[in-house]
Amino acid sequence: YLVFNFKFRSQSLEVRGAPAIAIVGCLSLAVELRAGAGGDDPVTFIRESLCHLTSARPTAVNMGRAARELMEPSERHAGEASSVKRTTSQAVISWIEDMLERDVNDNRKIGNYGAQHILSGVPRDSVTILTHCNTGSLATAGYGTALGVVRSLHGLGRLKRVYCTETRPYNQGSRLTAYEAVAEGIPATLITDSMAALTMREMDITAVVVGADRVVANGDTANKVGTYQLAIAAKHHGIPFYVAAPSTSCDLSLESGRDIIIEVRPPEELTSINGVPIAAPDLYNPLFISVFVNVSLCRVEGEVFFASTFKHYNYYATVSNCCMTEHVAKINCTLQSSPAEKISF
Amino acid sequence: YLVFNFKFRSQSLEVRGAPAIAIVGCLSLAVELRAGAGGDDPVTFIRESLCHLTSARPTAVNMGRAARELMEPSERHAGEASSVKRTTSQAVISWIEDMLERDVNDNRKIGNYGAQHILSGVPRDSVTILTHCNTGSLATAGYGTALGVVRSLHGLGRLKRVYCTETRPYNQGSRLTAYEAVAEGIPATLITDSMAALTMREMDITAVVVGADRVVANGDTANKVGTYQLAIAAKHHGIPFYVAAPSTSCDLSLESGRDIIIEVRPPEELTSINGVPIAAPDLYNPLFISVFVNVSLCRVEGEVFFASTFKHYNYYATVSNCCMTEHVAKINCTLQSSPAEKISF
Repeated sequence: YLVFNFKFRSQSLEVRGAPAIAIVGCLSLAVELRAGAGGDDPVTFIRESLCHLTSARPTAVNMGRAARELMEPSERHAGEASSVKRTTSQAVISWIEDMLERDVNDNRKIGNYGAQHILSGVPRDSVTILTHCNTGSLATAGYGTALGVVRSLHGLGRLKRVYCTETRPYNQGSRLTAYEAVAEGIPATLITDSMAALTMREMDITAVVVGADRVVANGDTANKVGTYQLAIAAKHHGIPFYVAAPSTSCDLSLESGRDIIIEVRPPEELTSINGVPIAAPDLYNPLFISVFVNVSLCRVEGEVFFASTFKHYNYYATVSNCCMTEHVAKINCTLQSSPAEKISF
Repeated sequence: YLVFNFKFRSQSLEVRGAPAIAIVGCLSLAVELRAGAGGDDPVTFIRESLCHLTSARPTAVNMGRAARELMEPSERHAGEASSVKRTTSQAVISWIEDMLERDVNDNRKIGNYGAQHILSGVPRDSVTILTHCNTGSLATAGYGTALGVVRSLHGLGRLKRVYCTETRPYNQGSRLTAYEAVAEGIPATLITDSMAALTMREMDITAVVVGADRVVANGDTANKVGTYQLAIAAKHHGIPFYVAAPSTSCDLSLESGRDIIIEVRPPEELTSINGVPIAAPDLYNPLFISVFVNVSLCRVEGEVFFASTFKHYNYYATVSNCCMTEHVAKINCTLQSSPAEKISF
């Protein structure tokens, strides 16, 4: 039941943020297994649950990756005795519980790494960051990716201010990022998505830092709609643009962002707030809106830093003042590369 | 009373759109004069009312221009007999009534001129336009400026579709432009402000057309926040960017956009919809939000076309694929130049 409930809650965006989707999805499975779901054949239950969980939010890659990790032992033991299957069930539960801790640790590393990298360009000054959507403790197991970088900068006493976009149509910036900033005393200012370029010009923005739903082999990055526009504005103003994401968000099986399944979202997310209509409903092209509501494709280039691991490596891409050029070098590695590696692409 | 009521309704954005502000403000004066306001000294009443009206919305130049036109006769006859003053009052009422008709005529000319210009680049195809905010019959005496261009294209059977931005924080796009499009059967799609760049990349946008609150001598254009960001995205995609506005929106007394008084708007326009909070209220920097909420400065370059008159000339600026460069040539003319003149700047 929890697993199916998760799919609904994930699709209704009650659970959102690519890493959090994987964590909450897996935890729902762990809770059901602990309660005895699947009976004598938990392995079949695991397999079916994972298939279901993976279909909930297609653009975010993290759930699919976790599912593949968990599917392997469940398939290996599919034909074995009940006792073996129950052991498998225990192993799956442990793996999922560890996942929570790994994710927080990974995020802290991303945050610290990102903060150090950004500060390396401004030895003494405090910095001003612009971010998009929500990538904080409400989108991950804790700490956050892009907002983790902001948290680390704040922890070091070097954050002057973070500007967070409202992030229409579902307002993750005003509803979640703003909430986290207030809760933690991080100096923050909310802006409409349309104010981003002007903020870059007038407010001395040091860097733009965003998260990712998925990063593919050529560096194309899928993230919340508006990311592409921010990248263009950052390029125009000569402001570095960073994608902060764990290696679980990397999907080197896809060559190009064009191969990423872009999630279909209902047009009502644009035309109403909390069920109250804010625009005429009969004007919209649902297909078009669907395509663009959740993510935009943003091709990035620059350097990729790999550090530490969630089975493989964390991912931290720096994209200096460039985006959407026709030239995109390939990432010359796979997730099997050695850790702490720094590569150019 | 109407005049003072107008100030409130204008500041609360019940009356909005630079041309409409001037028209409704002046009409409120005309109605009061017709009802005998000012008694034996309507001239003093006119002068005081105009001062009051001009202070309502400082960024839009049109009200100030109309006030100067009307102030001149009222000052000339200030010391004269009551009968002369009453004649002045009649003249003011007539001038204001004519203003309504002039504005619609001017808008039709802007629309037709803009449509012809855009179509001249695409001899056979139908075109797709992206517009921002509301510039239609609800922002003017009728027909509209940027939306007038869209109307003309639709009237010619050459409009494939118009994409209108939501226009946060006050949603003039979803509430007004969308309404006008539905009412007139214009094929339209509403997008969030953050979807504009992606729409430009994916939807074969022929041109971006926006209105203006004020255009100053060096070509700087003040318009709703988000305009600057659209101009950058248009430049990035090689899409022509046009400002459609009447000559009453030109203010050649100012050298640069930095001299334009940017209207202070309350932060609640961002943090609530219809009085219902949609974000934590204690996060925001009101000054910053104020500066950016109503308008952004967008420096444009290209050609200015003057055609027909509202005492002077209509203004139609074509800005081809460029914006916000450091090079800005001066407009080599004033509003006293001969009509139907075409100049480069």
